[in-house]
Amino acid sequence: MAKKSFPLSKVYGLLEPGPVVLLSTARKGQMNIMTLSWLTMMEFEPPLIGCVISGRNYSFDILKATRECVINIPTVELAEKVLAVGNCSGRKVDKFAAAGLTPVAAACVQAPLIDECYANLECRVADTRLVNKYNFFVLEVLKAWIDPKNKDPRTLHHRGNGAFMVAGETIKLPSKMK
Amino acid sequence: MAKKSFPLSKVYGLLEPGPVVLLSTARKGQMNIMTLSWLTMMEFEPPLIGCVISGRNYSFDILKATRECVINIPTVELAEKVLAVGNCSGRKVDKFAAAGLTPVAAACVQAPLIDECYANLECRVADTRLVNKYNFFVLEVLKAWIDPKNKDPRTLHHRGNGAFMVAGETIKLPSKMK
Repeated sequence: MAKKSFPLSKVYGLLEPGPVVLLSTARKGQMNIMTLSWLTMMEFEPPLIGCVISGRNYSFDILKATRECVINIPTVELAEKVLAVGNCSGRKVDKFAAAGLTPVAAACVQAPLIDECYANLECRVADTRLVNKYNFFVLEVLKAWIDPKNKDPRTLHHRGNGAFMVAGETIKLPSKMK
Repeated sequence: MAKKSFPLSKVYGLLEPGPVVLLSTARKGQMNIMTLSWLTMMEFEPPLIGCVISGRNYSFDILKATRECVINIPTVELAEKVLAVGNCSGRKVDKFAAAGLTPVAAACVQAPLIDECYANLECRVADTRLVNKYNFFVLEVLKAWIDPKNKDPRTLHHRGNGAFMVAGETIKLPSKMK
């Protein structure tokens, strides 16, 4: 998928709506992916993201060791692949091969971009103070990519127990908020 | 709006989709509201929520002092009131009166529930370690309320600069994830 660089100052608009994301990591040439819904913006620019990654996940160990990852945002067309990623462990399976996803080299981190996702955020760990108690990492976005053709991405939003809300219409309101 | 008690174990399903919320507080009989999109689940049960509240907001001071708030989830029918709340400051305005919202007494905290919102989460501050650097509060949900008649809430999801995505259809997928 042909992507272009995306301004860091606009990254918040990608994550505030609350999409399910795919977090990709790599260590010693081995790549992994996990699905994730527990994340929030924490600062506009440079963009900071807070996210919870359970210590039971293989990605937790890789992120803690390498301090790098990519947050990839899928749309509903990838729902089956998102599920496939969420329903197995990278300890046993090459998730890129298992889910049929394509890794692409990132610009600033060793972790790969997931080509099929419409947006990719290259991140490094910025703060680990809440990792021990809450598995909560603060990430800084170093570089962002977007598919310029996808103006109205139909992102997935987890309601729990296999129910996902799909992004609906976008409305414009006279807000003074950024 | 007639609400019923909602199990704490299911609260994550209300917040994971990423809705805009209204945070209500109270201090010495004075109530306030602010709009908020920067929040994430951090634990299932008891439910923990992490949220960023800028130090420029009047609610920041009240929450820091009282350590109590309510997270209220509005639907698209309340879009104009959500905007009205977001576009003024509680330092100058009684936001309940200005936006035409109805405060209702909570069960566990001094902050009021917003009656018109389909769900309300009574919270107390559980961790302030990241407040100084990131304005990031960890909240524990003590009690949750829901409108049992609203099975498919059309929540608002902020895309930035006055653009809001409205929750679309819900699909069911064979997920093993909670």
